[in-house]
Amino acid sequence: MSARTIVVGAGAAGIGAAGAAKAADPGGEVVVFTDFEDAAYSPCGIPYVHGKEIPDFEALFLASKQNYVEQGIDIRYTTVVESIDLAAGRVAIAGSQPVGFDRLVVCTGFDYADPGVPGSDLQGLYYVKNIRRAMEWDKVLDLVKTAVVIEATPLGLEMVTALAHRGIETHLVDPHPWALAEATDPDIVGPVQESWAEMGVKLHFNTTLERFVGETKVRAVRTSEGEIPADLVVVCTNKVPNARLAEAAGLQTGSTGGLVVDETMVTSRPGVYAAGDCCELVHGVTMVPIQGLSGSHAYAQGKVAGINAAGGHRRYQPVYVPWGMVAGKWMIGGVSFGETLATALGVPHVVGIAEGISRARYYPGVKKLRVKLLAEPGSLRLIGAQLVGQEGIKERADFLAMAVKTGITLEDLAWMENVYSPPIGALGEPIAAAAQNGLSNVAP
Amino acid sequence: MSARTIVVGAGAAGIGAAGAAKAADPGGEVVVFTDFEDAAYSPCGIPYVHGKEIPDFEALFLASKQNYVEQGIDIRYTTVVESIDLAAGRVAIAGSQPVGFDRLVVCTGFDYADPGVPGSDLQGLYYVKNIRRAMEWDKVLDLVKTAVVIEATPLGLEMVTALAHRGIETHLVDPHPWALAEATDPDIVGPVQESWAEMGVKLHFNTTLERFVGETKVRAVRTSEGEIPADLVVVCTNKVPNARLAEAAGLQTGSTGGLVVDETMVTSRPGVYAAGDCCELVHGVTMVPIQGLSGSHAYAQGKVAGINAAGGHRRYQPVYVPWGMVAGKWMIGGVSFGETLATALGVPHVVGIAEGISRARYYPGVKKLRVKLLAEPGSLRLIGAQLVGQEGIKERADFLAMAVKTGITLEDLAWMENVYSPPIGALGEPIAAAAQNGLSNVAP
Repeated sequence: MSARTIVVGAGAAGIGAAGAAKAADPGGEVVVFTDFEDAAYSPCGIPYVHGKEIPDFEALFLASKQNYVEQGIDIRYTTVVESIDLAAGRVAIAGSQPVGFDRLVVCTGFDYADPGVPGSDLQGLYYVKNIRRAMEWDKVLDLVKTAVVIEATPLGLEMVTALAHRGIETHLVDPHPWALAEATDPDIVGPVQESWAEMGVKLHFNTTLERFVGETKVRAVRTSEGEIPADLVVVCTNKVPNARLAEAAGLQTGSTGGLVVDETMVTSRPGVYAAGDCCELVHGVTMVPIQGLSGSHAYAQGKVAGINAAGGHRRYQPVYVPWGMVAGKWMIGGVSFGETLATALGVPHVVGIAEGISRARYYPGVKKLRVKLLAEPGSLRLIGAQLVGQEGIKERADFLAMAVKTGITLEDLAWMENVYSPPIGALGEPIAAAAQNGLSNVAP
Repeated sequence: MSARTIVVGAGAAGIGAAGAAKAADPGGEVVVFTDFEDAAYSPCGIPYVHGKEIPDFEALFLASKQNYVEQGIDIRYTTVVESIDLAAGRVAIAGSQPVGFDRLVVCTGFDYADPGVPGSDLQGLYYVKNIRRAMEWDKVLDLVKTAVVIEATPLGLEMVTALAHRGIETHLVDPHPWALAEATDPDIVGPVQESWAEMGVKLHFNTTLERFVGETKVRAVRTSEGEIPADLVVVCTNKVPNARLAEAAGLQTGSTGGLVVDETMVTSRPGVYAAGDCCELVHGVTMVPIQGLSGSHAYAQGKVAGINAAGGHRRYQPVYVPWGMVAGKWMIGGVSFGETLATALGVPHVVGIAEGISRARYYPGVKKLRVKLLAEPGSLRLIGAQLVGQEGIKERADFLAMAVKTGITLEDLAWMENVYSPPIGALGEPIAAAAQNGLSNVAP
């Protein structure tokens, strides 16, 4: 009889796991449970529909339900897994019979951190996650004059940009001194903040949220710096792992609250795998567990978990976390950590900074680009990077993540070869210039 | 008394050498001789002024003559060095007294290979090089109805694109079966050729040039496939090193005709340096000497030569030659070699290919991207790559050049982390997909 793999959750990790398990063992049965009405859409696209960069939500669907049927993947929509019985090898389903499994992959994703203030049960608080809810909220946005975004997380930055782009008076409230303060330095995110100001966004940094104000529906947020009227509040607190189901079943969680997995994505229980935002992963530089990575990470982890669950052999490697996004009128990105975080973690580092350009100085569309590199003193191995510019950010972040991973040094980067062609690249590469600056900072 | 460095030539290499020599030894005298009226403009920008992407030639000037005066660099414009006397340590100047030197850097650049057919003394043959001549030719272009570009070299590709963009009926004549055949494969350059056809360009591949036809002025080119009428012919043959002056002085040239230099850019004569297109350099994969690289290479070599001439210590490393350009409606690029060249050279290789996208599938402006990777069998170290797309080509080519240089493998690339953010990067990175394809091609 064929083995049955159950995947709990149908986000990027769950879909990755289901597809990989089916591919690795085509004779096996793959059943996916999801609380939601859909699978395989891109939640990461939601802010851009709200911002009107993308015309409609339909564009975000990646594959039809029929498509999964044809792949032989059995997705049970709007089906809530209530508990997992590891000893008996079955999951309990709300309003239905339990379903047994031979292999299990837990992909239960994330929750937004509880803002922890009164009023969080009011109407008018929007947590961006599910596409059906997003479609409803999008209609609400047509009526909204003033919105407050809570916390300058990656989603917060996207939502501020989207709401401002849509013409809504937007306030950003964040307890830190600048946006994305845990990941960026002020010189990197400064241009983003200036561009928001140009777009009319009101920035409230060093400002603590105290309460959501209203009777049944939110009408303001109260902060340490006063009250801000709001027709809508978008709660963009940090992502925290949703590991409740797995934890209740006895699977081990770590310091971040995420499920502990090894490099095969197996949990503390042999044969039970996990992937995506419900897990914690090891950071390649610090070797400290981290959580809350990207959809690309979740999908890749899902594939590893699915292959291994189906009897294959694939290892997921420590993460260095290249990241990038559009915020305001800029693109920002990086890898591992910036100066602020490295200092906070006590990681010794030397810094190299350069301002460069993305094309020949005289070529139409040329954009400025600031590159900041962090290296380990002595070895000069790259340990982190940050970028702000208007093109070529994602590709450089990917490159620098590989550089961190493979031990490339400031010396290597300082004398790197680069493409020079007026419409696509300048005579000198800004990464090389930043590395040369770093070398000059450590010269004897 | 301060030492005098003479630099012969004021292109990217010469300007790089002069600036570096002055910086390394501020008390030293630096004199640059150039045949031309100007220094420090970007000849690489000329095709884009002809193509009307850039409004005027003034934009191409990088620095004013006064700027060099202020730096303490003495540039002698329209001054022809007739010979070099290494034993006496002086250069002979046309119509003037010889000038002595303590240190010499030869940066005499390139010539276009002689087309080697009758009629090459006719008027109406344009060799793109000097900005003053380009200004004159640009006026001619206003009157040209039909132009023929000879050879699908990198400049040839740029000029075909520029002339077509300007609305001139453009023919491309090349003896190879496809464009840039020594560097690319047909699947990479195919989209470029299709886009030229859409732009009205007439492509004549597998076609040998036989003669330029006309009395005093060219009116046609005769080829192995017939005669093509032409108001103008742009001769874009391969670049060959211009090492005449140095060779006559007794400096050694190599198999490519370029000056032989070691990693310090010193020639066969101690104390005499050379940089740029007049030299040959070692290719990092094959260790074979090559010549005719980019302005970025020339500038970097000039800096190394200048620093070492002034008593410093800097090494220039073997080259892996990332390249990239806009051609037709596409960007193409790569590093080291493609499948065709690797096969011709007898370099064993495995291939990985993928078609990917540059942003989320649903995000406006998303572009297709084809990635082709070549790796050494067994070790799976990357040895070459080619790319065709419409954004992110230069940055990926730079990354892959560093990957070739540092021994990164298909395994490393297959499981690389990548930035995923809908406006700037897709869920999966096309480089990773190509590497996965390569692994599947070598799987046992």
